[in-house]
Amino acid sequence: MPALNKKRNIQEYISGYVDGEGCFSVSFSKRKKIKIGWETKPSFSVSQNENRAQVLFLIQKLFGCGFIRRDYSDKTLKYEVRSLNDLIEKIIPHFEKHPLISKKKNDFNKFKQICFFMERNFHKDKKGLKKIINYAFQMNPSGKRKYTKAEMQKALR
Amino acid sequence: MPALNKKRNIQEYISGYVDGEGCFSVSFSKRKKIKIGWETKPSFSVSQNENRAQVLFLIQKLFGCGFIRRDYSDKTLKYEVRSLNDLIEKIIPHFEKHPLISKKKNDFNKFKQICFFMERNFHKDKKGLKKIINYAFQMNPSGKRKYTKAEMQKALR
Repeated sequence: MPALNKKRNIQEYISGYVDGEGCFSVSFSKRKKIKIGWETKPSFSVSQNENRAQVLFLIQKLFGCGFIRRDYSDKTLKYEVRSLNDLIEKIIPHFEKHPLISKKKNDFNKFKQICFFMERNFHKDKKGLKKIINYAFQMNPSGKRKYTKAEMQKALR
Repeated sequence: MPALNKKRNIQEYISGYVDGEGCFSVSFSKRKKIKIGWETKPSFSVSQNENRAQVLFLIQKLFGCGFIRRDYSDKTLKYEVRSLNDLIEKIIPHFEKHPLISKKKNDFNKFKQICFFMERNFHKDKKGLKKIINYAFQMNPSGKRKYTKAEMQKALR
């Protein structure tokens, strides 16, 4: 863990770092055990090459939540927060106070909305889940998805 | 250009962004017109996908130097500072005041040293250029180079 100058505004540094390297995403999995049939999984993550992953440990320490794991597919380390509670209480307030500047801010805004929908259990009924899907499919358009929007909408008819 | 909240410490945000996305490099070109036969080219750059390049314009504005150009090879925009004067007067002081945290800091430190060597014209004689080469080849080990260290050292014998 690097030594930190306490006079620094490290919160802003983190927002800058995340604006470059971070990712807000919401994915979906088919789950027979869940009544609606789909699990909604919001995730905030930051990846970095293993040989310069110091910042991930710093981010984890400052946010006080999340896990760091090895991604064997591309030899990176990934810091990730999946807990809805941590996302709402720790991650979202940080980026409200120290906002992103790039267009990634649009992803964050949709991500935040979906987390608030989930807090109100929207993901547990058809109407709410459809709303969440609409928001989620407007995020990270370049990312890969296991199911298309059409497939999910069809399944929820 | 995004509107900025003036209460923000945007300098720290920029350091965070650069720690993820920026690059300090020193490359060399053969030049018959230069007495020593080699041009030493320090460069600070930040690349970003064109569709979220807002931050590059912000960085250019805050540093008050450098150029933004399209990189046709990979469809990105690249902010770049090559002027030794700007590097010494604007870029280096920023990262002294708001330091990088990842191991990219090691690259910055070598880059800074090379810029100071160049300020003292080390790059114009064999002994000085060899010293610069030694520092430069310890930076960005994953980057591609046109000439190997051995080739350059041989040419400077």
